Amino acid sequence: MQLKGHGGVGAWTVVAHVLAVAATALVLVWCIHFRGGLALRSHDKQLIFNTHPVLMLLGLVVLAAEAILSYRSFPQHMILISRDARKKTHLALHAVALALGVLGVYAVFKYHAEADIPNLYSLHSWIGIATISLYALHWLAAFLTFFFPGASQATRRSAVPWHAILGLLVFALAIGNAQLGFLEKLTFLQGPPLRLSRYGAEALLVNFTALVVLLLGVAVVLATANVDSTRYTAM
Amino acid sequence: MQLKGHGGVGAWTVVAHVLAVAATALVLVWCIHFRGGLALRSHDKQLIFNTHPVLMLLGLVVLAAEAILSYRSFPQHMILISRDARKKTHLALHAVALALGVLGVYAVFKYHAEADIPNLYSLHSWIGIATISLYALHWLAAFLTFFFPGASQATRRSAVPWHAILGLLVFALAIGNAQLGFLEKLTFLQGPPLRLSRYGAEALLVNFTALVVLLLGVAVVLATANVDSTRYTAM
Repeated sequence: MQLKGHGGVGAWTVVAHVLAVAATALVLVWCIHFRGGLALRSHDKQLIFNTHPVLMLLGLVVLAAEAILSYRSFPQHMILISRDARKKTHLALHAVALALGVLGVYAVFKYHAEADIPNLYSLHSWIGIATISLYALHWLAAFLTFFFPGASQATRRSAVPWHAILGLLVFALAIGNAQLGFLEKLTFLQGPPLRLSRYGAEALLVNFTALVVLLLGVAVVLATANVDSTRYTAM
Repeated sequence: MQLKGHGGVGAWTVVAHVLAVAATALVLVWCIHFRGGLALRSHDKQLIFNTHPVLMLLGLVVLAAEAILSYRSFPQHMILISRDARKKTHLALHAVALALGVLGVYAVFKYHAEADIPNLYSLHSWIGIATISLYALHWLAAFLTFFFPGASQATRRSAVPWHAILGLLVFALAIGNAQLGFLEKLTFLQGPPLRLSRYGAEALLVNFTALVVLLLGVAVVLATANVDSTRYTAM
């Protein structure tokens, strides 16, 4: 079952990149074409909401996926990309991902305030707050341990597997919470007053976007999981 | 960060058992006390629906968790529990989990048919069908590979890590889809005609039940993840 591309990059990594591009395109088609566009200031409050799924997906899903993959699946024999450069790429991509996520959370609070919708009652919002908080804490803890000031070699060595599994858990939370967000929004749209068709183009688009995000999550886990340890050392 | 109980059973395993009991209690309180009870035949079609979350949770979440833990975290030095017995327990628990899951899916189709609700339009239903199908396929493939007739030693050895990671992925899908189910049902109940309070006792109960299920999933992954390989051999 080992899948492998050329040059030592696993096929799951390639699949993940393709799905990341597809998820970005699909969420833009949904929010711009079907939902009317994006704005952080507008009389049409729905346009403010629309920035929320776009920013969360770009940040905690797409860039987070790229950040994880950048560390784990760059071909080890590409001499030009040193371990240090991979580490800095990993850390910088996660920082940008987190910043977009924070902006996306701000956007939905702004929408709720201006459209007079209560905050923080749904499971999506609860898990969302937990996820972005854990993402930030995990980033900070990893920065202090592995980058600056940096812990002792022994501490780093024992922290690495915990960093990997806790990082993947936070990423899995982000993937799962994106599913909750897609389902929640579509359920609202399918209720009154809009009563969007349950089997219409937009409903199918949103569900397919959610599935692409889910498969992206699976591909990242499979690309990262140490199932075949030879993959990371093979020339 | 290594957590360990007495006798070689990890603390995450103990946490998982406690959360499994809590999740079972909470879903029963919800469906019986708040939603009126359970029935597979009734004039009150809601009672038919109520069996769906109970059966799915007992099957694909609670028993699935116990099945995973039974193989990975029994203390290896307990001579009375042989590897063969653990394997049979693992396989039997997963079979019962799957049977309850199939009954739970039947219940919700029966509810839809009798209450005139369309099928298979929501993300929860799509991922649900995928999850139970993958659960069944994975069980069957593992049965043929590891139990009867059984593959060669070499094939088994290379299949074990794939069995573990794909099994955990299917379990993660079940945990995530339970979240989608709780959110979807609560969103329906909070819309017209019921307009259940967004911050009322039932809303909090359902969200907390979902969080307990989520934490159960995390505990099972952490109990199973091979982060500290000494845990499985330590006397």
